[in-house]
Amino acid sequence: MRKKLLSLLVAVIGIGQFSLFAQTNQPIYLDLSKPIEERVEDALVRLTLEEKVALVHAQSKFSSPGVPRLGIPENWMTDGPHGIRPEVLWDEWTQAGWTNDSCIAFPALTGLAATWNPKMSAIYGKAIGEEARYRNKNVLLGPGVNIYRTPLNGRNFEYMGEDPYLASKMVVPYIQEVQKNGVAACVKHFAVNNQEIDRHTVNVNVDDRALYEIYLPAFKAAVQEGGAWAIMGAYNRYKGQWACQNEYLLQDILRKEWGFDGVVVSDWGGVNDTKQAALHGLDMEFGSWTDGLTMNVSNAYDKYYLAVPFLEMLKSGEISEEVLDEKVRNILKLTFRTTMNPNRPYGSFGTKEHGDVARQIAEEGIVLLKNDKNVLPLDLSKTRKIAVIGENAIKHMTVGGGSSSLKAKYEISPLEGIKNRVGDAAEVVYARGYVGHVKVEQDGLKGGQDLTDNRSVQELTDEALQVARDADYVIFIGGLNKSDYQDSEGHDRKTLGLPYGQDELIEKLAQVNPNFVYVNISGNAVAMPWVKSVPAILQAWFLGSEAGNAIASILVGDTNPSGKLPFTFPIKLTDIGAHALPDAYPGDGEVYYKEGLFVGYRWLDREKIKPLFGFGHGLSYTSFEYGKATTDKKQMSESDKLTISISVKNTGNRAGSEIVQLYISDKKSYLPRPVKELKDFAKVYLEAGEEKTIRFTIDKTALSFFDDKKHDWVAEAGDFIALVGSSSTDIKSQVKFTLK
Amino acid sequence: MRKKLLSLLVAVIGIGQFSLFAQTNQPIYLDLSKPIEERVEDALVRLTLEEKVALVHAQSKFSSPGVPRLGIPENWMTDGPHGIRPEVLWDEWTQAGWTNDSCIAFPALTGLAATWNPKMSAIYGKAIGEEARYRNKNVLLGPGVNIYRTPLNGRNFEYMGEDPYLASKMVVPYIQEVQKNGVAACVKHFAVNNQEIDRHTVNVNVDDRALYEIYLPAFKAAVQEGGAWAIMGAYNRYKGQWACQNEYLLQDILRKEWGFDGVVVSDWGGVNDTKQAALHGLDMEFGSWTDGLTMNVSNAYDKYYLAVPFLEMLKSGEISEEVLDEKVRNILKLTFRTTMNPNRPYGSFGTKEHGDVARQIAEEGIVLLKNDKNVLPLDLSKTRKIAVIGENAIKHMTVGGGSSSLKAKYEISPLEGIKNRVGDAAEVVYARGYVGHVKVEQDGLKGGQDLTDNRSVQELTDEALQVARDADYVIFIGGLNKSDYQDSEGHDRKTLGLPYGQDELIEKLAQVNPNFVYVNISGNAVAMPWVKSVPAILQAWFLGSEAGNAIASILVGDTNPSGKLPFTFPIKLTDIGAHALPDAYPGDGEVYYKEGLFVGYRWLDREKIKPLFGFGHGLSYTSFEYGKATTDKKQMSESDKLTISISVKNTGNRAGSEIVQLYISDKKSYLPRPVKELKDFAKVYLEAGEEKTIRFTIDKTALSFFDDKKHDWVAEAGDFIALVGSSSTDIKSQVKFTLK
Repeated sequence: MRKKLLSLLVAVIGIGQFSLFAQTNQPIYLDLSKPIEERVEDALVRLTLEEKVALVHAQSKFSSPGVPRLGIPENWMTDGPHGIRPEVLWDEWTQAGWTNDSCIAFPALTGLAATWNPKMSAIYGKAIGEEARYRNKNVLLGPGVNIYRTPLNGRNFEYMGEDPYLASKMVVPYIQEVQKNGVAACVKHFAVNNQEIDRHTVNVNVDDRALYEIYLPAFKAAVQEGGAWAIMGAYNRYKGQWACQNEYLLQDILRKEWGFDGVVVSDWGGVNDTKQAALHGLDMEFGSWTDGLTMNVSNAYDKYYLAVPFLEMLKSGEISEEVLDEKVRNILKLTFRTTMNPNRPYGSFGTKEHGDVARQIAEEGIVLLKNDKNVLPLDLSKTRKIAVIGENAIKHMTVGGGSSSLKAKYEISPLEGIKNRVGDAAEVVYARGYVGHVKVEQDGLKGGQDLTDNRSVQELTDEALQVARDADYVIFIGGLNKSDYQDSEGHDRKTLGLPYGQDELIEKLAQVNPNFVYVNISGNAVAMPWVKSVPAILQAWFLGSEAGNAIASILVGDTNPSGKLPFTFPIKLTDIGAHALPDAYPGDGEVYYKEGLFVGYRWLDREKIKPLFGFGHGLSYTSFEYGKATTDKKQMSESDKLTISISVKNTGNRAGSEIVQLYISDKKSYLPRPVKELKDFAKVYLEAGEEKTIRFTIDKTALSFFDDKKHDWVAEAGDFIALVGSSSTDIKSQVKFTLK
Repeated sequence: MRKKLLSLLVAVIGIGQFSLFAQTNQPIYLDLSKPIEERVEDALVRLTLEEKVALVHAQSKFSSPGVPRLGIPENWMTDGPHGIRPEVLWDEWTQAGWTNDSCIAFPALTGLAATWNPKMSAIYGKAIGEEARYRNKNVLLGPGVNIYRTPLNGRNFEYMGEDPYLASKMVVPYIQEVQKNGVAACVKHFAVNNQEIDRHTVNVNVDDRALYEIYLPAFKAAVQEGGAWAIMGAYNRYKGQWACQNEYLLQDILRKEWGFDGVVVSDWGGVNDTKQAALHGLDMEFGSWTDGLTMNVSNAYDKYYLAVPFLEMLKSGEISEEVLDEKVRNILKLTFRTTMNPNRPYGSFGTKEHGDVARQIAEEGIVLLKNDKNVLPLDLSKTRKIAVIGENAIKHMTVGGGSSSLKAKYEISPLEGIKNRVGDAAEVVYARGYVGHVKVEQDGLKGGQDLTDNRSVQELTDEALQVARDADYVIFIGGLNKSDYQDSEGHDRKTLGLPYGQDELIEKLAQVNPNFVYVNISGNAVAMPWVKSVPAILQAWFLGSEAGNAIASILVGDTNPSGKLPFTFPIKLTDIGAHALPDAYPGDGEVYYKEGLFVGYRWLDREKIKPLFGFGHGLSYTSFEYGKATTDKKQMSESDKLTISISVKNTGNRAGSEIVQLYISDKKSYLPRPVKELKDFAKVYLEAGEEKTIRFTIDKTALSFFDDKKHDWVAEAGDFIALVGSSSTDIKSQVKFTLK
């Protein structure tokens, strides 16, 4: 035994190339066997005041310095949540013209949320983390989990919908898998950044109940369950302080209540005051100024709030060096977790595997909203000609939309995807139908298409009608397009309606051909005044590189749709609290979240408004039958768990997945509560004829609400109802239980 | 004991963050416990033909792709031998305007060679390797060891002088220390690249004796002793084939004779034929075409010889895939040694420590050529006014000269250095004296100075004379300046003489003030027709960031000069073989190295020409007395070692270092041999009055010559003389011995 041990030991030690023994004489900050806190302290005391100040602000558009003297590497950030942004010039937004930075574009996060499948979050995070790592970025500026308060928010497509529980469940695996690559996920935008109008100035007034129950849970999950190493402050103000320098958000909630031990990064240009930024918990300032200036001014970044102005306050004693040290500790921790983790993997980039991941998520995220008379899937065996109509059939959606714009390695447009899939089985003809795309600034980016079309509306309409009349199916691919005001950063939409005269065109086309399918490309709900005329509707998001393949796969039925809406499609804008109430959006300097916690379906439930398509809605090419919900006990205590069971059977002819949703309704409470709230869900795959029993186990957290007076979560004794359904508007069974 | 072992083992294994145990399920190519060859083979078989072809040519000015699919990182190269080149645009030479890339500029390699101190090579390599590593470059394009054949070669300043033994000894520690950073040294330019005129076309005709005895030894030492991981082919042709695709050089000599196991990189634009490059041992092609083209043409690099044209030949079977595989093996090895070595350190950049290294080397490399009446060091206690004259006193030398041009973090000009050092001790006045600097293209680089001066020659001369008359000392700082034709890549010098009318000015100045010191800034010998009029001369090289401080330190005597010339200063150009013989330089398409192995002092020795300053010459502020050379035996066999001993005593009043040189003379041989050849040296530090005995131990390699008929090294039995001296022209003692 002793001999064996000895030889094993020798074997272990003998592998000389490992750092274990080579690092014997290294300083503590390089000693991987030491706890990270000890390494941080060891590095910290070696730094000069100037070196520390250099760490807390940018040196270029997307990087901040390390400590060159000590071999502590620089930090390189990358947008964004959907793919790795192409390289830009040092101090300009202009692309640097590199040819090694064409990424895989993954579906925008609404599309991910629509999968209702945390496994999809995991493969998304793994793949995008690998892409970031290969490109030597150590901070990925995403994911975004701002709650969908209004369908007009231009950036909703980057977020995970209207429900805090769904967003929480979906964000966690994304973060965990990104970070396994030694790349920090930087959750954004913290917090209450729910509109683009006046985003740099608006002061959000929201009550603590809505804040804690609606707007913060996904961030809290990201921090506490996901273990996010970074978080990004928002542009807007809250309680009169900008979010990036907000004492209440960053110090009281993030650090003290949640115990966040990562780094707080500003949004680009989100800092507005040295002292507040210094004292209220921001660690790194980015994007405040300069755009091309450094070509002439070597010290342009010295003007940053956390640069020379901060240094001067530190030197004068106006701010204590301990304030700086705390930021530096957080940044060093980031470094040790990412660039200075010698065991992080090497990543991979633009791979077929990542393309497959993008496609799988896209296919799982597409939502079949309506399918009267089973128009879908297309029956190719009986099809001679398919008319594809609409600009979004040919428009690349990975370019544009703001900071999440990408230089994709490839993007399969819907028309390409359909043509590829249909092949010789039928003729695919195309008519543009309308022109929305204009050569705008964002097209200056690589990948911007030239889609010039000078025909009149009449000509375009005539051509479309002509094509539609003559086809077995009409697939209209429209929606929004990431132009300004049409799902794009920096602007909110102006109306719920579709732009570019699509409504009129859809009505006309649906008249001439009853086999009409509308594919809506967007990250937001849109109005569908023609909904009764259109038998089949798909919600297809901004799906990234594999968009066209995923859409085609759903259309022809290779993939059975299994996505569900992560937000409500209202019939009209005023069916949403933020628009029903006067002056609740977009505000005038001040915005008041008057609907409180009644966001999304919580508002429609309370107001008994029927949505166009409800939260959690999504059909399948098969059908599911729900049994009766039961609980394992009638009563539970605060320390108990309770299990709700229900059987679900695939009663159709093909395999499919159903997302079974558990809502909880509090029969009586001393503070107003929503009619029901999502508290669990399960995506279950069933072969044709197969039946499974789904079990949801909850504890008191599923019953709790936030008491703003107590500033604590309360599970109030009394009766509750567990509602199990196929969507928020299609509850299949319910069962009562009591909290003692 | 067993318990102790067990707990030690547990402790070792317990450190879970080490890759040792985490990588259990990783593929072999990622398994650090496997031999590198096995990892290479494992990676190789995973690659597609296209992926392999992508590896063997550039994707941008300074990078080549990795395998993004497998996480194999890209290769990023950086000029050059003297510092880390600033970031350039993707496909243009224009600087990218980054602000994190201002490096420490180290002395140009002639200055390093002039230290005759391998320890200086070691600290140079360590420091520049750290700078490369911090900047995430994994291949440093240097050092250069082309032999100094003619003082006109515009790139001599980047090399290590005229002697193969000195260059060999100096190159090895540089490489070893660079590579400890996980950065490959890329030794250049292989081979017989000894002039800039017609460098892209000239075919070098050199006999094998000169090739093996003069031009190759430093490369061989770099490979076999230094263990260089990369080597760069030259631009010129040899035996009718370009050096980058030269079967004899790359296959027969480098791979087969020397067993080189690294990667052969082309010089930028050094490839001219697909088939030759493919078959003759080149591994990576760089710089062939494109300059800004990729902004519009995405596949511009596909035109490279080793890109699509190569792929097509592979596909057609015209070239075997094994040829490609061999290149890929070499490249994968490079990767595993550099970017995929998780235990490489993190480097450091632009540090004071590196500045100190630059200064130390600069101080040790400056050569005191002449010091009549001990004009130097300056006696500040008796000095009222110092006149500094000459453009090179103010001209930055880190910018310009070609690919070794740098963006230095700082550069202390001689005038600044002198002013800083003299301080209040004396008045320092400056007159420019002459204007050589013109705003040329290279000044478009960052750091280019505006030195516009429109005064006439008469005005400049008058001012200089005025200033000189009135001073206690005149320090004239002139020489060459890295402009085209004045020590710069791409052009040879046109004459041995100084440019810009310096000779006339020096004569005049020396007349008006006898305390005249000439400081020559150059990487080449220059003519000094006024040498008798000038009492003190310093050879000060292109010294980098610390140039001015080092020069000042020598001038005032803080540092006692200890450098010696690594090449001969001839009186006139025709004192050098390449210029004495008709049509031996620069050739007309063909260049004939007619002097054979009689390069540098070997020529002057044979022709009995007295140099201006001989190879190995250099004075000190103290004096040294040599004893009598003795050997430990009178006869040695081929397997023996023999030790030559000599005492050296510091007979002056201050400490100093002497470089004691051992030359061997073969009394009789069946092939012509140089009169004597350097075979060892020692830099010895002696306190005032101190005496040490220096021992040189040689074996038969010190006695051998290359027999081109036998194609082998021969140590011919017979008498040899060991000559020990202070320079090649100042032999202090000699002793005879016999090889049996």
